[in-house]
Amino acid sequence: MIAVIFTSKRSKGFDSEYKLMASRMDALAKSQPGYVGVESVRNEDGVGITVSYWDDMDAVQNWQRHPEHLEAQRLGRERWYEWFRVRVCNIERMSANGVD
Amino acid sequence: MIAVIFTSKRSKGFDSEYKLMASRMDALAKSQPGYVGVESVRNEDGVGITVSYWDDMDAVQNWQRHPEHLEAQRLGRERWYEWFRVRVCNIERMSANGVD
Repeated sequence: MIAVIFTSKRSKGFDSEYKLMASRMDALAKSQPGYVGVESVRNEDGVGITVSYWDDMDAVQNWQRHPEHLEAQRLGRERWYEWFRVRVCNIERMSANGVD
Repeated sequence: MIAVIFTSKRSKGFDSEYKLMASRMDALAKSQPGYVGVESVRNEDGVGITVSYWDDMDAVQNWQRHPEHLEAQRLGRERWYEWFRVRVCNIERMSANGVD
């Protein structure tokens, strides 16, 4: 399985536009082939980590090239994020506690 | 490079004990061979994602088996976290914007 780690800091402003697009991207990602799940946290300083999980690298590439997602990425670079990093990773091992 | 994604939800209570140990583990991790960096966010609901970065799998295993870290893991399971997940990943690609 693939994990895409998206670490970012929100810029000031464009809050309602950003929220609308974040919610749209969340729904759109869930509807893509090969989508497995997402974990997302942002703190009060505007620093966030979102990890999305995918069946394989093809699913990640399809999602990264989706036209609406490309438009969101453009606005992200231009307006919404002071900085961000994207890391695409292959999951080698997993352990868990207290979750089904 | 290896990323260790630690997703968790804090239980209620043991706040000062937890903070002390989290700060100690942060410092101890930084002093380990093969440590590269860390990104960590927890929101007001107590859900957190911490991603630590390491040179290779040996560095990860050494850190996961460090005696003080093993003790912290035990207390984590018993007291501090309602649930957690650990995923050890191999980073395949990275991109960034607005960071040096």
